[in-house]
Amino acid sequence: MSITITAFERSPDGGKGLARDTRVRWALEEVSQPYEVRLVPFPALKQAAHLALNPFGQIPTYEEGDLVLFETGAIVFHIAEQHAGLMPGDANARARAVMWMFAALNSVEPAILELVTARLLEGDKPWREARMPLVENRLRSRLDQLASRLGEADWLDGAFSAGDLLMVSVLLRLRPSGMLDEFPNLAAYVARGEARPAYQRAFAAQLAVNTRA
Amino acid sequence: MSITITAFERSPDGGKGLARDTRVRWALEEVSQPYEVRLVPFPALKQAAHLALNPFGQIPTYEEGDLVLFETGAIVFHIAEQHAGLMPGDANARARAVMWMFAALNSVEPAILELVTARLLEGDKPWREARMPLVENRLRSRLDQLASRLGEADWLDGAFSAGDLLMVSVLLRLRPSGMLDEFPNLAAYVARGEARPAYQRAFAAQLAVNTRA
Repeated sequence: MSITITAFERSPDGGKGLARDTRVRWALEEVSQPYEVRLVPFPALKQAAHLALNPFGQIPTYEEGDLVLFETGAIVFHIAEQHAGLMPGDANARARAVMWMFAALNSVEPAILELVTARLLEGDKPWREARMPLVENRLRSRLDQLASRLGEADWLDGAFSAGDLLMVSVLLRLRPSGMLDEFPNLAAYVARGEARPAYQRAFAAQLAVNTRA
Repeated sequence: MSITITAFERSPDGGKGLARDTRVRWALEEVSQPYEVRLVPFPALKQAAHLALNPFGQIPTYEEGDLVLFETGAIVFHIAEQHAGLMPGDANARARAVMWMFAALNSVEPAILELVTARLLEGDKPWREARMPLVENRLRSRLDQLASRLGEADWLDGAFSAGDLLMVSVLLRLRPSGMLDEFPNLAAYVARGEARPAYQRAFAAQLAVNTRA
């Protein structure tokens, strides 16, 4: 069955790979599955046709036969379950890979989103300067914990998994802030993710969309 | 194999059921699995023994034989995979149940956490009054979208699933703010979750911990 995902017609980041379709593209490239992309203009995100696919009016969505999914974590999980390459075979290691998927999205990304919100949505507010150190320090303490756990390992739990794919993707959102470089082992971890051929193909594909004439 | 989870020795909410061990207790009650609870005093959360179980220094954790998990979403998912009662049998419906698990934790909970942070961690800051409406309105727009998708249905995708368990648990965190009552169908959805016998048993168990002499 053919796979169709949605992506922004023009990503707000201009092709830096931070829009969430890159995560799904990366997963599909890791398992060597072809896919189609339907580009969605901004106004259409909040219209009925797209809300039927994703009630939160976001990209990406995933369509495969009768199955329609939204929520990047769930899409990546579905891909990882259907095809070899993103989940370990051992049952306990698989449960831990799922654990790191949830950790990326529920324990790390919210603290990063808080920083993104403070910079982008509240960057012009009078409290920006006084509040930013609080937001940054909450995020730093979370990144400290993650850096301690990762240590000098290449990946979070032995072999690369869907958990690493999401954690690297989440940490990439930090790069514009410069904060990633405060944690050298996390920066190296992200670089290892970006160096994977599947990531390179995913990044190039989203860049082509965002730099076309 | 016996199951051991961790919980706060004293929950900051005094037994309102908002600490995340309630979510895991609820899942275990839905699938009728017995479990042990190890209570963790606050200072121990940041000590090496607990950080080995959960690098973010939080509860709950889950131990079952050689398997150690943190991250509530992953624990609930593991329970739902091992035992009947929290996942539909149909493959597509199962993928959608996982989708709602991720939606609860990545698309709904971060907006609620932002409100909790604004009230508890930044409640004494000079920007509180001016900033609160922004935080509340971001959350309202997300809840509006969820309420539109749920409509008059009992559960998010047909039968009750692990997706509903997490979504109800996340929405419960809104109750102290009064904002849940702005969305009558979401309030009714939460009440349906709370009325389940398994939830009642989980709630009573955490309350007993937090009201003991």
